[in-house]
Amino acid sequence: MASVNPPRGMRDFLPADKARRERVLAVIRERYRAHGFDEIETPVMEDYDRLHAGIGGDNEKLSFSILKRGMDADAIRAAADDPAALADLGLRYDLTVPLARFYATNRAQLPTVFRAIQMAPVWRAERPQKGRYRQFLQCDIDIIGDGTARAEAELMVASLDVLDTLGLEGGSIRVNDRRVLDAMLDVFGFAAEERPGVLITIDKLDKVGPSGVVAELRERGAAVEAVDALAAYLDRPAGTPTFDDAGIRAALPAGIPDEVVAHLVALGETVAAARGADAPLVFDPFLVRGMGYYTGTIFELAHPSVDYSLGGGGRYDGMIGRFLGQQVPAVGFSIGFERIVDLLPDADAAGERSVVLVHDRDVPLAQLLALKSHLVEGGARVRVEQRAKNMKALLERSAADGYGAFAPVGVGTTPETLELRPLS
Amino acid sequence: MASVNPPRGMRDFLPADKARRERVLAVIRERYRAHGFDEIETPVMEDYDRLHAGIGGDNEKLSFSILKRGMDADAIRAAADDPAALADLGLRYDLTVPLARFYATNRAQLPTVFRAIQMAPVWRAERPQKGRYRQFLQCDIDIIGDGTARAEAELMVASLDVLDTLGLEGGSIRVNDRRVLDAMLDVFGFAAEERPGVLITIDKLDKVGPSGVVAELRERGAAVEAVDALAAYLDRPAGTPTFDDAGIRAALPAGIPDEVVAHLVALGETVAAARGADAPLVFDPFLVRGMGYYTGTIFELAHPSVDYSLGGGGRYDGMIGRFLGQQVPAVGFSIGFERIVDLLPDADAAGERSVVLVHDRDVPLAQLLALKSHLVEGGARVRVEQRAKNMKALLERSAADGYGAFAPVGVGTTPETLELRPLS
Repeated sequence: MASVNPPRGMRDFLPADKARRERVLAVIRERYRAHGFDEIETPVMEDYDRLHAGIGGDNEKLSFSILKRGMDADAIRAAADDPAALADLGLRYDLTVPLARFYATNRAQLPTVFRAIQMAPVWRAERPQKGRYRQFLQCDIDIIGDGTARAEAELMVASLDVLDTLGLEGGSIRVNDRRVLDAMLDVFGFAAEERPGVLITIDKLDKVGPSGVVAELRERGAAVEAVDALAAYLDRPAGTPTFDDAGIRAALPAGIPDEVVAHLVALGETVAAARGADAPLVFDPFLVRGMGYYTGTIFELAHPSVDYSLGGGGRYDGMIGRFLGQQVPAVGFSIGFERIVDLLPDADAAGERSVVLVHDRDVPLAQLLALKSHLVEGGARVRVEQRAKNMKALLERSAADGYGAFAPVGVGTTPETLELRPLS
Repeated sequence: MASVNPPRGMRDFLPADKARRERVLAVIRERYRAHGFDEIETPVMEDYDRLHAGIGGDNEKLSFSILKRGMDADAIRAAADDPAALADLGLRYDLTVPLARFYATNRAQLPTVFRAIQMAPVWRAERPQKGRYRQFLQCDIDIIGDGTARAEAELMVASLDVLDTLGLEGGSIRVNDRRVLDAMLDVFGFAAEERPGVLITIDKLDKVGPSGVVAELRERGAAVEAVDALAAYLDRPAGTPTFDDAGIRAALPAGIPDEVVAHLVALGETVAAARGADAPLVFDPFLVRGMGYYTGTIFELAHPSVDYSLGGGGRYDGMIGRFLGQQVPAVGFSIGFERIVDLLPDADAAGERSVVLVHDRDVPLAQLLALKSHLVEGGARVRVEQRAKNMKALLERSAADGYGAFAPVGVGTTPETLELRPLS
């Protein structure tokens, strides 16, 4: 037991970090709850088979498996040819697979339109790198049982409210629809079987630009005329389309089904009505998003202070049916908790409501705890520290931990003679 | 994928349950924080070797192990003779082993006296039975770096405050000291090597009574004269000893070291000073508590409404040293979160601040979400439901989910014409 590090790619959270995380979680929980979402919780584990049923995409390969208990030597030897036999359970790699299972299990006790909040850790055995961890928190909201644009609108309005409440005003949402992408690729002339690969390349548009996308598609040997059509379209004078019928139609080639455009237009109108005049939606016909299970609207939360997204989601009408044996529409959004936490400052010190009692060594325990209780009962948060040689370090650490005041305590100090002094 | 149940012995939490759990957690977090404890978090996994180093007692055998990733057939075959080679990590079975590791990792960044809160799930592969689960939440507070009775007193005062705040006033704490037990067994004449077994039997005193304990000890073949001495002592006219020097000494046979009694007396005085006149401590010289790592004071939280404990803890001065290579005193308390949640009622409905909008099918989405936003911005929690054939069921479920009012919404309903009606 030489090393005392946490497992590879996983983090300890010290008091200041943990306090900030819990503060953000409390805001997310409270705001989503106000918007009619109900928090649920599932176990961290699901059946191995369910986690490897093809819904999780690449994440399935990254999942941690739980060793079957009570295997004897023969059973282990037999598993050499079938490693899956070593595990009966696994840790979830996202919150969507567990939600689909939860809904199938508990449907009878849930409202017809079920609005779920989940805020919980997930695990992926990725190669650790800066900003990427093997255990991290996901905060998802999902609406199951509503196929109209109201569902997307509720997710968006609630999530913008969360950002506003956290002091991150000015958020906007990039929106597209998987059916738009599919229809566009069809219009350009890509065959159905090459479209998934083409989408993977288009997904890099933000990083490599139009010429990079076109070059990669040519390299991959995608249909030449289709690539030409796409290149010409990417080359068009674009501007930012307005999020209404005219704007969305103008941003698309001819041949996109009316009902898809109508769904997007209804979404824009609904978000605008909910937010007052301002609907911070941006139509982006080349937004792809990775997961294979999306079937309709897809969207990403953006904020002017950062060039990466602060969350994303989409409609996945097919998935619940795989568990339930009956189609149920669903749409979800995952707010980027870990990224948002990193953007926010530490809490301000809480002033005289947050006090460190610094006592001389000879102060009787009973006197000390009576003083502490007096302050706690008065509504304060109180830490007790014995006077140290290095008082500067002690006071600095207290300030870093969110304390705003300190008070020296000697033999005989009473609540009446206690003197609070500001800490920083 | 026929079954949609959560894994064996694990639970889904539906909205009402989850809300109640989060409400209790928020109180525990807030009160412990007020008493100067700082919340931390560790990963759910620790190194396999650390979890199986003998600190966890019987829980080590119940731990879930994480299958090593990337094992080939040969490696699996080789593991047939050494199943531990299949796992490099495991899920924690308590919060004490991770805390000791955390402290060793992060000591330089922590206060000299570190008061930790941990509220997090643990996993044990126990045979599922009523009230016992394979994933459950533990809420621990620990004080590392303080060997005085102040540490125990702070744990106790803060935990009694949690109970009071949750509406469970009248809690009390049974207290003993491992050194009391050890000295008593020595006085009675039990040899050092038979004492651990004798303690296991004495731990059943509450269940089987004095005659049951004596019978089991005779059956086990414990030293005859020692059992006679214990039997005579158990047979004494007891009464409840007062928690002071005279009371504690009177409750014990002669020969208990003075410093042990002094630690208990100081604890009583300190808790009394912190709580005002009232120190709800009960000295119980036969309280044992299971974990082998306790070295000093041990205690259990009791409440008149139930005949089981609502938490327990003790001093474990030896454990941190095993990770740190340097002795550091430590004492911890685990409040019985799962038991406390079961004791508390559901939240009261939140009245007109918690509203279900029941809309006709033809209400435009934009109108509906504008109404919803109007209420949310006014501070309400709002759920949207389409009018159902069975309105009674819809309204009952809304009330069960904590909504206090509903309002019908038709085409043209505005914030001004919206009529709130009580839900129950």
